[in-house]
Amino acid sequence: MSAARNVIERCDEMAAISALPETFIERTYLTVEHKAANATVAEWLSEAGLATWQDAAGNVCGRLEGARPGLPALLLGSHLDTVPRAGRYDGVLGVMIAIEVAARIRRSGNALPFAVEVIGFGDEEGTRFGATLLGSRAVAGTWNHAWWHCTDADGVSLHEAFAAFGLDPEAIGRAARRPADVIGYLEAHIEQGPILEQRGRALGLVTTIAGARRMLVTVTGRASHAGTPYAMRRDALAGASEAMVAVESLAPGLGLIATIGRVGALPGAVNVVPGAATFSLDVRATSDDIRDDGLDVLLAAIGDTCERRGLSVDVEHTHAAETVHCDERLRSALSRAISATGDADPLDLFSPAGHDAMALAALTRVGMLFVRCAGGVSHHPDESVLEEDVSHAIDAMHAAVLNLAEEYAAAPQ
Amino acid sequence: MSAARNVIERCDEMAAISALPETFIERTYLTVEHKAANATVAEWLSEAGLATWQDAAGNVCGRLEGARPGLPALLLGSHLDTVPRAGRYDGVLGVMIAIEVAARIRRSGNALPFAVEVIGFGDEEGTRFGATLLGSRAVAGTWNHAWWHCTDADGVSLHEAFAAFGLDPEAIGRAARRPADVIGYLEAHIEQGPILEQRGRALGLVTTIAGARRMLVTVTGRASHAGTPYAMRRDALAGASEAMVAVESLAPGLGLIATIGRVGALPGAVNVVPGAATFSLDVRATSDDIRDDGLDVLLAAIGDTCERRGLSVDVEHTHAAETVHCDERLRSALSRAISATGDADPLDLFSPAGHDAMALAALTRVGMLFVRCAGGVSHHPDESVLEEDVSHAIDAMHAAVLNLAEEYAAAPQ
Repeated sequence: MSAARNVIERCDEMAAISALPETFIERTYLTVEHKAANATVAEWLSEAGLATWQDAAGNVCGRLEGARPGLPALLLGSHLDTVPRAGRYDGVLGVMIAIEVAARIRRSGNALPFAVEVIGFGDEEGTRFGATLLGSRAVAGTWNHAWWHCTDADGVSLHEAFAAFGLDPEAIGRAARRPADVIGYLEAHIEQGPILEQRGRALGLVTTIAGARRMLVTVTGRASHAGTPYAMRRDALAGASEAMVAVESLAPGLGLIATIGRVGALPGAVNVVPGAATFSLDVRATSDDIRDDGLDVLLAAIGDTCERRGLSVDVEHTHAAETVHCDERLRSALSRAISATGDADPLDLFSPAGHDAMALAALTRVGMLFVRCAGGVSHHPDESVLEEDVSHAIDAMHAAVLNLAEEYAAAPQ
Repeated sequence: MSAARNVIERCDEMAAISALPETFIERTYLTVEHKAANATVAEWLSEAGLATWQDAAGNVCGRLEGARPGLPALLLGSHLDTVPRAGRYDGVLGVMIAIEVAARIRRSGNALPFAVEVIGFGDEEGTRFGATLLGSRAVAGTWNHAWWHCTDADGVSLHEAFAAFGLDPEAIGRAARRPADVIGYLEAHIEQGPILEQRGRALGLVTTIAGARRMLVTVTGRASHAGTPYAMRRDALAGASEAMVAVESLAPGLGLIATIGRVGALPGAVNVVPGAATFSLDVRATSDDIRDDGLDVLLAAIGDTCERRGLSVDVEHTHAAETVHCDERLRSALSRAISATGDADPLDLFSPAGHDAMALAALTRVGMLFVRCAGGVSHHPDESVLEEDVSHAIDAMHAAVLNLAEEYAAAPQ
């Protein structure tokens, strides 16, 4: 069986490890499915010749020593958890490719100037506890102890779930890697977008991973009875609706991806013109400058729309994550590796979605490879990849590791 | 003191009977403020020479017999309850005018061919228990026993509040008048709109009271992560926002007053493109035909907007009240009475807001007079009326009663 076929069949095996095995794929942090997924992945890591363990955050890990034991490690990985009603490749594909690459390095007998570690992160999606990237943030050493109080839909806290999974919350710090022990992180992931397919490419090179800015916009007018003539209304929701339409129409021209996920009106009665309306706004772009400049334009448009209606606007900024730039040298190593698969001029891609690499960037330099997926569909049972694309992805990741080994041997850093 | 001055000062006295006496006017059903308001109004009714009582629903009533005891009665009235942070004229003004008119009839010594009753309804706004027009619906005999389970913000049920107020829920049927005992209902009320002021008129004649149709619109798309490119989104809230803007822009040209008071998005996460969005829609017009034809246009526009975006729409109709037409003969009597105040061609007005007359229409024919209010402002502490307009309103209501007495003497019905 080809390496790519093996990876795809392993993704199918992983898909069967689900809370709803006959209907949907759902595998969330610190559940019995998580435990089963870790056991299966650990077996494949062992078969590939890696030493395996589960870290203090429930991530499953494997290590292949380099020229001598104890060298700093190049990390390869992605996540094993899913959203509800998931597809079978988001996250899992990257872990399976990493295992295949490690196996190939071991089989070749090449002694690399660094160790290679494979990590299957236990939580990236944040499906169960709301907070995201829990597995990779534990490894990066950016665990937030406020998360212990996060609860799942059944009221189980993250702290309780740790204990139930057999983990010691007190020991979470042990999952954090020391920067000196790590030389970089590479991740392969499906694109979750249509660009590679539209351009006829199997693989793409990620330049930046968008950091979102999030805010809550409150529009205030005057509540009045539903019989109030139009000329006398100061309808906060009418203003908010027009503002939301403006956000959608302006964002693409500003290079933004803007999402309004929450909305509400007060007092919220069927027969009362709303005196206040709120909506959330999540804005992403290829760079923080584009994002922040574009956001200024959006907020000005929201303000103008509301001012024209005699409404006031208040913006509460609730979250800001910096955009992560993939490391130049890792990009170069990946780019040459993609070229070696036959794509002379690899396509640069911006990732509007977050990834484990975002969290790892706090620990080490990161690089990412995107794999074409059918129709750009993700977070959906219809996720699909081509076997030949997976084959190219394995080859490219393997070549990138060898490229880095060559550079590192010449100039360790 | 002039009659109008007396009415205005009584409105001021009533304003002091409030749950928040130093800051806002708030007087709701079956509270200590309701009891105090009834006591004060009963005193004024007695002073005017009327027999007074509190009915089984907590409405305060006064009766002036006609040419002989026990004749059917012409009812005059409005409500004594308020919204939160209310003005001092909505409802109360109509009751004070009715008392003044009854006093004037009694002083004149005219023996009318019908009795005159004044009613101060205990609940029209529905502030405390959600359901509206409780006082007038008890009188009309359309009390809904499902209301007993309605609760206030403190969890007190309507049933419990009745007992606490000293009323017997079992006896609610006694508040209902027999149609044969009533010959009609006349109500004076502030316009709660700007038209009289814009046209320079003190008074207006209500033609119809809008019956609202209410529905819940659900737009369904596909939830996806906030990094999803625009071309791949099926954003239910973006579609709903555009639909809400379309409703606001189309409604006036269709002769509709449309209100969207509630809105929500699912799953309702800051970083998820909504897969579903819901909004309420309340539509009113001068006639049921205009309303229903206009609503068809609105729903088609909502459907087109969503279809263009690959979204589906579901409309759940939750409420429909027929528009109430004021009685021709009562309108004629009021129109002649307004003309007698110096306005040769009284202005016809449509009432987009509901009134006690709406509930009374189930019992008897109804007529309504609107009084100009400053800036059309209502449900707000800035509610204001001119003393000379109140004077015209008293004269007009008095003259209308005399006009009806003349007609009724000629042809009782």
